[in-house]
Formats: sequence, C-alpha cells, structure tokens
Amino acid sequence: TAGRFLRLLFLLCILHYEAGQVFGVWPMPQQITQSTDRYLLSPQSFSFSYSKDSAAQSGCSVLDSAFKRYYSLIFPDAADGARKTEFSINTLVAAGAAALKAQSVWGALRGRVYSLIYSLHCIYYFVNKTEIQDFPRFEFRGLLLDTSRHYLPLNAILKTLDAMAYSKFNVFHWHIVDDPSFPYQSYSYPDLSSKGAFHPMTHIYTQSDVKRVISHARMRGIRVIPEFDTPGHTQSWGKGQPNLLTPCYKGDVPSGTFGPVNPILDSTYQFMSGLFKEMKSVFPDSYVHLGGDEVNFACWKSNPNVRAFMTKMGFGHDYTKLESYYIENIVNISSALNKTPIVWQDVFDYRERIPKDTVLEIWKGVPADYRTELAKITHAGYRVLLSAPWYINHISYGQDWRNSYTVQPQNFSGTDQQKALVIGGEVCMWGEYVDATNLHPRLWPRACAAAERLWSNEEMTSNVDQAFPRLEKFRCSLIRRGIQAEPLFVGYCKDEYRGV
Amino acid sequence: TAGRFLRLLFLLCILHYEAGQVFGVWPMPQQITQSTDRYLLSPQSFSFSYSKDSAAQSGCSVLDSAFKRYYSLIFPDAADGARKTEFSINTLVAAGAAALKAQSVWGALRGRVYSLIYSLHCIYYFVNKTEIQDFPRFEFRGLLLDTSRHYLPLNAILKTLDAMAYSKFNVFHWHIVDDPSFPYQSYSYPDLSSKGAFHPMTHIYTQSDVKRVISHARMRGIRVIPEFDTPGHTQSWGKGQPNLLTPCYKGDVPSGTFGPVNPILDSTYQFMSGLFKEMKSVFPDSYVHLGGDEVNFACWKSNPNVRAFMTKMGFGHDYTKLESYYIENIVNISSALNKTPIVWQDVFDYRERIPKDTVLEIWKGVPADYRTELAKITHAGYRVLLSAPWYINHISYGQDWRNSYTVQPQNFSGTDQQKALVIGGEVCMWGEYVDATNLHPRLWPRACAAAERLWSNEEMTSNVDQAFPRLEKFRCSLIRRGIQAEPLFVGYCKDEYRGV
Repeated sequence: TAGRFLRLLFLLCILHYEAGQVFGVWPMPQQITQSTDRYLLSPQSFSFSYSKDSAAQSGCSVLDSAFKRYYSLIFPDAADGARKTEFSINTLVAAGAAALKAQSVWGALRGRVYSLIYSLHCIYYFVNKTEIQDFPRFEFRGLLLDTSRHYLPLNAILKTLDAMAYSKFNVFHWHIVDDPSFPYQSYSYPDLSSKGAFHPMTHIYTQSDVKRVISHARMRGIRVIPEFDTPGHTQSWGKGQPNLLTPCYKGDVPSGTFGPVNPILDSTYQFMSGLFKEMKSVFPDSYVHLGGDEVNFACWKSNPNVRAFMTKMGFGHDYTKLESYYIENIVNISSALNKTPIVWQDVFDYRERIPKDTVLEIWKGVPADYRTELAKITHAGYRVLLSAPWYINHISYGQDWRNSYTVQPQNFSGTDQQKALVIGGEVCMWGEYVDATNLHPRLWPRACAAAERLWSNEEMTSNVDQAFPRLEKFRCSLIRRGIQAEPLFVGYCKDEYRGV
Repeated sequence: TAGRFLRLLFLLCILHYEAGQVFGVWPMPQQITQSTDRYLLSPQSFSFSYSKDSAAQSGCSVLDSAFKRYYSLIFPDAADGARKTEFSINTLVAAGAAALKAQSVWGALRGRVYSLIYSLHCIYYFVNKTEIQDFPRFEFRGLLLDTSRHYLPLNAILKTLDAMAYSKFNVFHWHIVDDPSFPYQSYSYPDLSSKGAFHPMTHIYTQSDVKRVISHARMRGIRVIPEFDTPGHTQSWGKGQPNLLTPCYKGDVPSGTFGPVNPILDSTYQFMSGLFKEMKSVFPDSYVHLGGDEVNFACWKSNPNVRAFMTKMGFGHDYTKLESYYIENIVNISSALNKTPIVWQDVFDYRERIPKDTVLEIWKGVPADYRTELAKITHAGYRVLLSAPWYINHISYGQDWRNSYTVQPQNFSGTDQQKALVIGGEVCMWGEYVDATNLHPRLWPRACAAAERLWSNEEMTSNVDQAFPRLEKFRCSLIRRGIQAEPLFVGYCKDEYRGV
C-alpha cells in the first residue's frame, strides 16, 4: 500500500499544476479563466459595495448579510476589519476593482466571492486575476433531511443549511414527519406533536424554530419545501389525531392496530385541508411535498368499511384506485391553496389523475430502472426530480462519492423536450441510522458530488479522478468554515479542526 | 415500514421487561442477579470509601480519581455534592451499604459502580438490589487507532480512552506511525517527525502528549502498546532517517524511490536499537508491537546490494528468508529490552524463528481463513490475538455491529490448551477514511459489540436480538457521558445531545 500512496501523491501534484488556481472551487463554474497575475488583498481596505446601476442597493437584507458572512470567510484571521460596513455590489477589490454581475439577488449571492481568495502563511491574502461566467445546469438542487426517524436539533439543521450554501444547493426538502415521530408543532392541531413527537417539549420544532430555519435558508438562497407525507408513513399522526388512520381488522374485529390515513371519511379531508391551510401560512415556498410513497394496502383490505366504500365507488378490488382517489383529493386541496405539489414516483406509477404541473420525484432502483422511469414520466409531460442514485444515507467503505458523481440525470431515451423536464435532483439523507451524532460527516463532503453534478457542465466534470483533488481541497474549506466534513482519503488539511 | 417499526417497539418493551434492570449494563457481567427492591440514593450522603481490610487505601491514585469520575457519572446533575471527598472502597451505599470486592485495583476500577444507578425525573436516583460476580473472558481487549494515515488530535485519543473504559477495553494499540506520516516526536531522532510528520509542529505527538495519553489510559485501567511497524509501512521514516530505507533500482541505477527498511546494513540495526531503547523509556508496558505485515519484496529484489547479501547469506531467491532475518534481529533487540513482542500474522506465515513468548495478531480473511490460522498458530504453541473480524473501519449500511457480535474467537479445531492460547482480540480503526471529524461516531457503539464478545460469557450473550435493546440503552449512556456515539436504529435518547 506504500506504493499506491506515493503514486497518489504524485497524481495530486500533477493535477494541482494542471488545474491551476481552480483547485479549490466547487462546484465547477460553467466558465473560468485564471491568469497567474496575483493581487494582494488587504483586510483593512477590502470592502463590498453595490454598484450605482445595480437594482439591489444597501438595505437588501440578503446581500447585506451575505457581505458580512463572506468577509469573515475571506479573512478568518481579520475579525477586526469587519468593523468596516461600507457594502456595495459589483466588487471584490484587488489591486484594482472586481465586478460581480448577476441577474438576480440570488445569483449575486451565489457568486464566487470567497472561494478564489487564499492566504499565504495566514498573513497575506491573494486573489488571482479571474473571469467567471456561471449559472446552474438545473434549477432544483435539493437536499432532504429526515427529522422523524431521529430528531435533529435546530443547530444541526442550520449548520446543514450553511454547508448547503457552500455547495450551491438551493432547496432544503424537510421530510419533517413520518411514522416514528411528529416533531412539527402545529398551532391548529397541537396534539400532533404533543402526542406524536418523541418528546412533547424537547423533540419538537416550534413555530419559532420553523421561522428560524426558513429565514436562515432564505438568507443563503435556499428554499424550504416541507413534506407532509400521506397516506402512508403516518403512524405518528394517529397518536394526536383520532380517527385519522384506518383501523385494521383481524377477521370481523378491529385488531387494535392502524394502517394508512383513512381515505373514506370526510373528516380526513377536513383535517388535511386545515393542516394544509396552516402549511400555506407557515411555509412561503410555492412547492409543497405531498409524499404518496409506499402505501401498504393490507390494512385497507382488512377493513369492512373500506371494502364497502370500494364497492360503492366501483373500484372493484383495485386498491390503487383508492390510493388515486385519496391523492387526487390531497393534490386538489394543495392546488386550491396555490401550492405546486411534488410527490414520490409511486403516485405516477399508480396513474393517479394529477395536475400537469405536479413534479414527480424518482427514488427507486438502479440506473436501468430510474432511466426507464425518467423516460416514462417525461413522456407523459411531467416535470421530474432525480433522487434514486443519491440516497446517501446508504454508506459503504471507501470513496462512494464517486458513484454519486458519475450520475447522468439526462441520460435516458427521450426528446430534448423530455430532457428539459428534468428540473433537478435531490440528495436524500434518510434518518434510520443518522442523528446529530453522525449527520455532518455523513453528509459532507459526500453530498458535494451531487451538488456539482446538478450545477456544473457535465462534459467539463466528467472525470472523477480529476475531480478528486479539487473536492479534497474543497473539503478542507468546509473544515475551515466549521463543517465537520469527513476525509476523502489519507492526508490532512492545513487548518483542520479549528472550527470543528 | 410502519408495521416493522411498531413491531420493533413492541419487542423492545418485551425485552425490557424480561431483562429487568440488566437493560443498560454493557458488557454483560458473568453473573448478575437483580431484585425489584429499589433503594433511593442521595447525592449529598453518597460516598465511596475503602474498606478497612482493603489492601488499597486512600492515596491509591487510580481509585481515588476513579471515585471522583464515577460520582459525576452517577449524579450528573449534582455537581455540588462532589465537594465530599471521603472515599472508601467497598461501597455503593444504598439504603444500607454495598460492597465491591476485587482482587486488584484494576478489578475494582472495572466494578459495576455506575452502570446500575438510574434516575427518575432527573431528581431522584435509584439502584436496585443487585449481586454481580464478574471477570473478563479474555485478558487482552484491545482497540487500535491509526494516527499516521490521518493525525488524530490529542483530545480525540483521550476521548476514545474514556469510551474504551466504559466498554471495558483494556489495551490501546497505538499504531502511531506508518507510510503517510511519522507524528511521534522522538527525542533521539527528532528528524523523524520534523521531516516525516504531516506538519512538524501541529501534527505531532510530543513527549508530553505521549505521557498524557499513557497516564489518562492508566487511570482507566488501559495499557498503551505502541506499534513501530517495520520493515514495510515505513515510507515516512525515510524522510528523517537517511539510508534507513532500501533504494529501489530500475535496471542498474537507483530509481529515486525507496522500499522497506534496508535489512542488510548494520546502521539499520543500530538505529532500530536506539529507537527501541527510547521506546522502553517512554512506553512502560511490557508489550511492544513490531508490525511485520505486508512487506513488498519488489524493491529488495531490484537492489543489487540486497541480491549480493542474499547470496552471501545463502538465502537463494527466497526473500521470505531475508524478511525472517530482519524480523529475528528486531525481535531480539526488543527481547533484550525485556519487551514481549506482538507481531502481525505475516511473521508466522513466513516462519521466522521467533521466541515462544511472541504474540501473533491475526488480521486476514473471512472466518474460514482466520479459524485455520487460529488453529495453526496455537498448534505451534504461540499466543494469539484475533482482529480479522473486527476491522471496523470497514463500514456498511445498517446494523453491522451484529457481525462483530457473533464472532466466536475460540471456535476452531484445536485442543483446550490451544484455545487457552487465544488471549483476546482487537478492534481496529484504520485511518484511510477516518480522522477527528468522524472517528467517534464510527467507533461507538460499533466497537462495543467486540467489547462484549471479549468480556462476557459467550453462551449468555449468544443472541444478538436480545443484545440489541441493551446496546441501544448503553449507547444512550455513552451519549450522556459525552461520547458522540451514533444511533443503532430509529428512536431517541432521553438525554441526547447534552454532552455532544
């Protein structure tokens, strides 16, 4: 193994040389030209400022606070300089001036402001003359956290949002409730968390917590999409909402256990309607995730009232029709509230009649499977998100980020129109084996692989071996910024363990 | 998956009931009887004291400081009470008195002093009437950390020692140097770390650091065995010690690269002798690990001087004889210093002539392989350590601790005498993908599985499903004590994230 290690070091040096100063930039910009001209930066005289012809001006809270954050990232050892508060877009003053032009505040926010600057001996700061043209390949670059299988303290979520911003993720998919626990504290239905959370006081997200998450995310250009998954994955809902779940039967008598949400009662839809009205007031994003995955029909089949309803509705013995009936109702509730629904692929597989603006999220199978599904769903004209290859809660020994990296989201049989319906993808960190003790090192830098795939030009980033040293360097930046990102291989970071 | 979760919860309750208060005790004692009689403990009046007829008395630093630690573990919310400093062995005062009898200070140290006490509502502390007879199945219960592939800050090592003590590990195998870096700061050969460490100042273990590790370990009943692995795995040594490594040749000229330690030079043995003399003064333990694994012969074969030496010694083309020659010399150096050598199994496989008190450590292969090796080595009369099934740097999705748990170290063809030569085993956390960012959640509670296998009666602990809820509870104790132990499955701990 000694030999292999040496060869690797050698490879690192070569790549470093070839890639020049692009080395630590992640994800790869669409276009970057760097010269060896190097400018000295002084923390004392450095400032951000809005250009005179910019639509955004001082007072734009998102950029004002981004300038503060970026300043500290650029000059970690020069906290004193932070007293200067003259901000202005259009900058990055080197020995001259630098301009950042963006079509929107969010674009400016994601400008490569802090990733190009490096220090020598922690005293002098430099930036090479650089031109960047950049834009994301996909508009939807999501990361899912599951706060039901384990509760994640607020800080773990906020820290995740910080790291997401560094990798240019722009959607936090909050799988907030599920079978094991219901930590969302609803103001309309407080029993849901007081009876359904792991603990009614310590293991909940209060309205203030949710506001804090949404605001922290917004400041970093990240939208928050909550998922209230029904009709399956709802065991914890049943504790605080009587008559919501279907009573399962053993022969002619209720067995005492419960199945999915009961789709045959008016009270179910009244409750869901009430809950979604609350959602609308709490979560400002135009999307809402409605779930719809993995519905087990056994309990519905066992229940004589459900069977009678099936007959009455003419569904025969086809329970996928009952599932469709339920989902249609839920989708209509959310559409009436002007929310665009996202659902798991199961909903398409069951052929529910759903509005054309619904987004389908693919989570099942190996590449052959998800490529077929991509073709089918886009053929039917629906927009689609890819998650199947990015279930990074699944771990294995070694550099498994390489598998995430080599995914080709648009590599399936279909027209250009179909390919354009792939609006992005999501990294999913399901919570069976993950809580605050191991969340960050499992997420980072493994999630960065998908972040680059969703942002960068595929041809420019097709070589995983070339990406390796750049990702290694980026991982060291994450460490320096206080993100507990695990190592990719043997070695060390210059500033390791300062903030961790 | 909802159904599975509910069944699991149900199982937990059943097992909890069946196992009674044994629930959180890990590893399982050899004998434990608990009644439902419950005594209230008061932090104010609780004290440890040495019994009058005890050989150890106040002033025994190991136990004096253990009493302090155990008190804080028992009463985490009653730090005030810690002012009382009347210690005395023979205690655990409930509504009466409790006795702990041990044959040695180390036995007393590992007495079940703090794992039986529990609190209700964090105000009252209770202990059930309990009798325990306990002793370890194996005398050698080790854990290996690799501080060469990544540097581990001192705190990460000290924290690991804390967690080891909670699981009754008693040997810290410090794989301190290897190919990538040489962090040990030698006072005889300071260039080894100043040139061979990742960083000559921040990524080294000073003599004070090493003293601190040894003392922290000793206070917890843990011996520290350093490994200075030769002749392979020594690339980093070459940077600070000229002429130590074999120059590799390409045809008739040196290629500029280096292979294993050069076994044909007197200077090599003078250096090794000097280094091991330092070792003797720094590491008090009677064992020393000499490595001896994975020697690549290619470089030796390429070197004309080595080839000439082979001819002179009559080794022909059998480079295992050269390897044997080297190891014999090294073993003799360490034996002359009254150290008992431990070596990797490779040394036995090459049939070196080694002293009969040498311990062989098995690290290769699947159960069929390591069972054959166990049989062979013990048949030859050597003592043996088992590590092959406990390379827990190898991770996989889900509850992989179950594989570690079901290992049967003495299940191989051999006489009772042979079985008695199995003195224990080691959990190995190699460092290719591990540093301070992910060390603790990868180690804990996964390493606990081997800890119980090495401590407890195999028949009493043969059922991995029965062990599950007990380990889950123990994992929560680790969390409460500030160890960042990852979850085993869906759920939560009452006191989670206080100390993490």
